[in-house]
Amino acid sequence: MREFILKASKASTIPFDLNDLSAAGRMDLVCRCISNALFVSDAIRGDTIFHAVLEGPANPPKTVSFSGKDIVEFAPDERYIASAIRAVVKAKADGEIFPGIKIEKKSFERLVEEKAKTHQLLYMHRKGTDIRDVKFEKDFCFILGDQQGIGRKTEHLLDRFGASRISVGRPSYFASHVIIICQNELDRRATGPDETFRSI
Amino acid sequence: MREFILKASKASTIPFDLNDLSAAGRMDLVCRCISNALFVSDAIRGDTIFHAVLEGPANPPKTVSFSGKDIVEFAPDERYIASAIRAVVKAKADGEIFPGIKIEKKSFERLVEEKAKTHQLLYMHRKGTDIRDVKFEKDFCFILGDQQGIGRKTEHLLDRFGASRISVGRPSYFASHVIIICQNELDRRATGPDETFRSI
Repeated sequence: MREFILKASKASTIPFDLNDLSAAGRMDLVCRCISNALFVSDAIRGDTIFHAVLEGPANPPKTVSFSGKDIVEFAPDERYIASAIRAVVKAKADGEIFPGIKIEKKSFERLVEEKAKTHQLLYMHRKGTDIRDVKFEKDFCFILGDQQGIGRKTEHLLDRFGASRISVGRPSYFASHVIIICQNELDRRATGPDETFRSI
Repeated sequence: MREFILKASKASTIPFDLNDLSAAGRMDLVCRCISNALFVSDAIRGDTIFHAVLEGPANPPKTVSFSGKDIVEFAPDERYIASAIRAVVKAKADGEIFPGIKIEKKSFERLVEEKAKTHQLLYMHRKGTDIRDVKFEKDFCFILGDQQGIGRKTEHLLDRFGASRISVGRPSYFASHVIIICQNELDRRATGPDETFRSI
């Protein structure tokens, strides 16, 4: 299973204006990450889970998770994904609000701590090991910062949990770009039929 | 110089509703392609030109070109880019409507014919040569289809112009994903300082 965690340090944790996603703590960036992690051109990736940890005002933190194998209705455009996030942050309690889309009152730190028990942690960092040279274990989880970066304190936490620093190349890419390059590297190494891709 | 041509077979050639980009002939996809071609996280790629050939109703074809070295104002979200396209398709005459953004009454076939004279043509195709094995010439142009694919007749045209078929890997990716993988491969081969990246 391929998992991604995005630390969206400014992303809104209350309903926001769909006509100005940038003003909602760069929710546009969050949506592009989700789209790029879960979609190929004609299907959803059933082998991918994406966690967006929203840390912006006014009720942080909230972790919204998208499970490719369970999602029933979805589209790759920013506005569609933003409207799904907008609906789930309204929810009164934790849980699966739509099939494959759940929300929890969970911090980035707690989520990473949980994943560290069972997953190889791969912290995407400009100065890490080239992803083309990485040996992936059975379960792994990519960790990405947003335009603010991940922060020194959080980097220490990731070091403590044994996260490896992995790079996709030289310029400073958007997280949404990094995700595509990760998925492509994994696709290149996959063997057998494309049974992980689900039409929805 | 890195150039991209997207054949957007349904994309609207008249002003459209910014709140439903999908209904505007998948303008959302066109916008994601432009965003991914031109942006890195904190800058615009000054070495990249992107041509979107809009072939949808009601006044096709229109070629909208974005030149990374000349653009002054721009943002990476779908809605911002769509609003720029919406503004330029309204223009009464061909020309540069905003710095670095121009529109022409030019067909895909004519644009490809022009580029073939001076550029290596690279037609992105699932069954092509792996991009990691491609030798790039000084000037090259990637050619991409949208969700409809490029069509048999157009493929013959590309063959006639000597376009090579190039692949980025196995699943059927969105054109916007293919663009990121192309840019990453080129970034990996680039040498010297990052002087092609422009802050705007």
